[in-house]
Amino acid sequence: MVTGTVRKRPAGQENKEMPTGEIEVLAENVEVFNVSKKLPFEIKEFVKKSESLRMQYRYLDLRSSRMQKNLRLRSQLVMKMREFLCNEHGFVDVETPTLFKRTPGGAKEFVVPSREPGLFYSLPQSPQQFKQLLMVAGVDRYFQIARCYRDEGSKPDRQPEFTQVDIEMSFVDQEGIRTLVEGMLQHSWPAEKGSIQVPFQTMTYEEAMRDYGVDKPDTRFNMKLTDISDIFSSTQVEFLRSALDQPEGSIQAILVPCGANLFTGRELETIKQTANTQFGQELSLVLVRTDGTLKSPLKKLLSASVTDDLIRKTQAQPGDLLLIAAGTLHSVRPLLGSLRLQCAELLESHGRSVRDPLAFHFLWVVDFPLFLPKEDEPQELESAHHPFTAPLPEDTALLFTEPHKVRGQHYDLVLNGCEIGGGSIRIHRASEQLYVLKNILKEDPSQLTHLLEALDFGAPPHGGIALGLDRLVSIIVGAPSIRDVIAFPKSFRGHDLMSRAPDTVSDKDLTPYHICVKWPTKLGGEEK
Amino acid sequence: MVTGTVRKRPAGQENKEMPTGEIEVLAENVEVFNVSKKLPFEIKEFVKKSESLRMQYRYLDLRSSRMQKNLRLRSQLVMKMREFLCNEHGFVDVETPTLFKRTPGGAKEFVVPSREPGLFYSLPQSPQQFKQLLMVAGVDRYFQIARCYRDEGSKPDRQPEFTQVDIEMSFVDQEGIRTLVEGMLQHSWPAEKGSIQVPFQTMTYEEAMRDYGVDKPDTRFNMKLTDISDIFSSTQVEFLRSALDQPEGSIQAILVPCGANLFTGRELETIKQTANTQFGQELSLVLVRTDGTLKSPLKKLLSASVTDDLIRKTQAQPGDLLLIAAGTLHSVRPLLGSLRLQCAELLESHGRSVRDPLAFHFLWVVDFPLFLPKEDEPQELESAHHPFTAPLPEDTALLFTEPHKVRGQHYDLVLNGCEIGGGSIRIHRASEQLYVLKNILKEDPSQLTHLLEALDFGAPPHGGIALGLDRLVSIIVGAPSIRDVIAFPKSFRGHDLMSRAPDTVSDKDLTPYHICVKWPTKLGGEEK
Repeated sequence: MVTGTVRKRPAGQENKEMPTGEIEVLAENVEVFNVSKKLPFEIKEFVKKSESLRMQYRYLDLRSSRMQKNLRLRSQLVMKMREFLCNEHGFVDVETPTLFKRTPGGAKEFVVPSREPGLFYSLPQSPQQFKQLLMVAGVDRYFQIARCYRDEGSKPDRQPEFTQVDIEMSFVDQEGIRTLVEGMLQHSWPAEKGSIQVPFQTMTYEEAMRDYGVDKPDTRFNMKLTDISDIFSSTQVEFLRSALDQPEGSIQAILVPCGANLFTGRELETIKQTANTQFGQELSLVLVRTDGTLKSPLKKLLSASVTDDLIRKTQAQPGDLLLIAAGTLHSVRPLLGSLRLQCAELLESHGRSVRDPLAFHFLWVVDFPLFLPKEDEPQELESAHHPFTAPLPEDTALLFTEPHKVRGQHYDLVLNGCEIGGGSIRIHRASEQLYVLKNILKEDPSQLTHLLEALDFGAPPHGGIALGLDRLVSIIVGAPSIRDVIAFPKSFRGHDLMSRAPDTVSDKDLTPYHICVKWPTKLGGEEK
Repeated sequence: MVTGTVRKRPAGQENKEMPTGEIEVLAENVEVFNVSKKLPFEIKEFVKKSESLRMQYRYLDLRSSRMQKNLRLRSQLVMKMREFLCNEHGFVDVETPTLFKRTPGGAKEFVVPSREPGLFYSLPQSPQQFKQLLMVAGVDRYFQIARCYRDEGSKPDRQPEFTQVDIEMSFVDQEGIRTLVEGMLQHSWPAEKGSIQVPFQTMTYEEAMRDYGVDKPDTRFNMKLTDISDIFSSTQVEFLRSALDQPEGSIQAILVPCGANLFTGRELETIKQTANTQFGQELSLVLVRTDGTLKSPLKKLLSASVTDDLIRKTQAQPGDLLLIAAGTLHSVRPLLGSLRLQCAELLESHGRSVRDPLAFHFLWVVDFPLFLPKEDEPQELESAHHPFTAPLPEDTALLFTEPHKVRGQHYDLVLNGCEIGGGSIRIHRASEQLYVLKNILKEDPSQLTHLLEALDFGAPPHGGIALGLDRLVSIIVGAPSIRDVIAFPKSFRGHDLMSRAPDTVSDKDLTPYHICVKWPTKLGGEEK
């Protein structure tokens, strides 16, 4: 602490770069409040230090101007969202419990032992049930910046606890929720990041899968999937023929501009390997030489007219690269959707500008299927999102006849190819909810008795959304990880490297909770 | 849903009581969104139904205008606090983890098993450590509306999870925090509850104990404790003499105006019983008759001059009641402090106005002792609040010589006799913090390595406060319980009566957490 007199700096010694650069203090007294040990790293060199060192001394890492900016921007963004919801639109901020019980299929929920033997609370993955109950309770506009929990082991860039902007409204349709969220984001958008235009682009799930091969397309760049099946309708090439002959068989291509010019042989090999190892599929590469001729193993198999059609349909130019995949839509689309992103990155690594790093492309994806075949039992159905999503009104009758064809009133919000939010209009009639749970999903409805009962007391039509706040902020500030916008994140193994949580707990401290640790037996331990 | 044309009500049919009482809708179409079963209770009759029924159908209970008001007032109060802190005073809203590790002595912390055998997270009782680390991190003005957890079994009107307004600042003194909180409460106070005056009254811990017998006095009414020891300085009455002869021995009285007139014999007996059963002390009652004479077992033991002194010192009037207790200060003060409240309630039950139900009396209590003798080992010391509280600067030297005499820079905020907040200026030097932990509290400092290390990297002087939001809101709205200002509270046994949490969890679902349930053996089970 310096005590003294503030005065103008002598002429010529002003520092225009600093907010206080025009003045100085003529010190009369100095008091040292505290001293500091030598820091384990320079605060400035945040990029160079290892992440584990940053996490161990998180309180020093947070001193960096980058982390200070991230935390302060996050705080202000949330404040503006609250002003929009609370002050301008009459929403009520309601805190819902985090000591709850397991939801059906909630295998990723942390358990919290209670003092009653065998009884456990569960940390909820979202306030979904409570926000629907609030609609029944007449709190017709609810929001909460809600802490949520998901135990996903070591998934990259996930956190065991995370935050979502949680919203629910009564007497609302999809359009109403979308308009609200667009207004909220526009209102709260940081001025230094430019402004965002509303309404956001909207695309059906089917269009997204058709054009981008994913349900969260990055619309900052083109390179869409092209269906080239018709070019090959009379092909006799063995693998193309067999692909087309199966149900939903298709041949699709994406065009990588200048890919033939820029990509090295090793990079082309990597692309093929990705297709092979991650997707189990063969990929055909076609390079368009500068003179317009093709270089490809396919070349000698294709007639001149098919080659012409291919070039014309894909609009390939000299120097471009074509990726061609053949198989079912279900396998070809995700493959090309993923390679599209990989090629964009590769192009950028060669200095081509593909995705504008300052652009924010919002996109609504709608008309998702309500149910999907279970991965391990494809004849059974599971919810594409969650069991409370209402069907599209025009598809409701299909619930009872062809449930796999029903589209849901679900909407995802995508920003630059990342899903940052999702929501739906909910089922508000108890009988319909019970039918979905019991007859379609084959779930035991007794776990949801309270919700089913609540719907039976005159629940209004309602719907809502949840935005992933950590992800949203990380995209806004351009951070590579959500750990850069969370003050005290966990490592990818779920550890707090600073305080060393989780930690051991004595048997004595576990006694009131009637649990004991089951130490894993060593491999082969039983055979000794 | 009614579709139609809005028009003015016919003349004479307006209803001025309703916001929409001047108009009506000429209906053209009606659609029924949902139907309702017969409700288990009338929404209006909230007072008559049992609390367990209200909790089972909480979503119906919340429809009552009283609960709607409580939730909406809470939301608005918090919004205004945020505006004050964030927009007007530059505070940063930082979310801190709730999956943490046990703090030393944190016996009331819920444990959360992790996927690593024997390792547990802990749900923190407050963000105390994180907010201090944020001060080291240069986030010099932090706040959070923080969810906190405390496993206290079945204490009345406690909740296993609760919310506190959590604040911490760097380069601040007690005065700075108090002024900030006064400003925040004044700014956010609901207009319909009148305005509150700042600064709040301040009282030392010693004054509070001396005048009110408690550290959270209800200053809405008088009936203070009076030390009448000097009147009895030469008494030979056995129990009074032996009380005065012990260290800190004292005789104290409180005067209950009209108590002799109003209280029934049974009520007087109850007062004596409370003293006996809850405090293990004998209480002497002195009734002043309408003619000024006394009625008391003490009467015949006291000389006329002592009697005169007693009446004069306590200013007793005909019809008044005196409660007199003799013993150590440590025992007499809490007894009379408690009986003071009991008598206020009794007076009110007889129709006397004692505490203004519309008044809000805020009070700061300061200069608490930093350490107190442990209950089970009185020669050892424990923190009166928590181990991070700094001593008063003028008492710091006593840390090393007479720690039991040190006063802490702790302050409690009391509203109408309820503690609604507490905070302190913290120790910001690692060496001082280590000395307190190791040499005075005899705690193992290894559990706090991260905090001690952090202080060593130039921690600024800092301090803060936490306000209990649930309690504050319940006092503002005049609710008898904090359950009336929480959307989905737990029962006093920690149960959610609506969803039936906590619940059983299958062995299979416990397997990833390496725990098993230890079922208690039945009484005598081993002897069979």
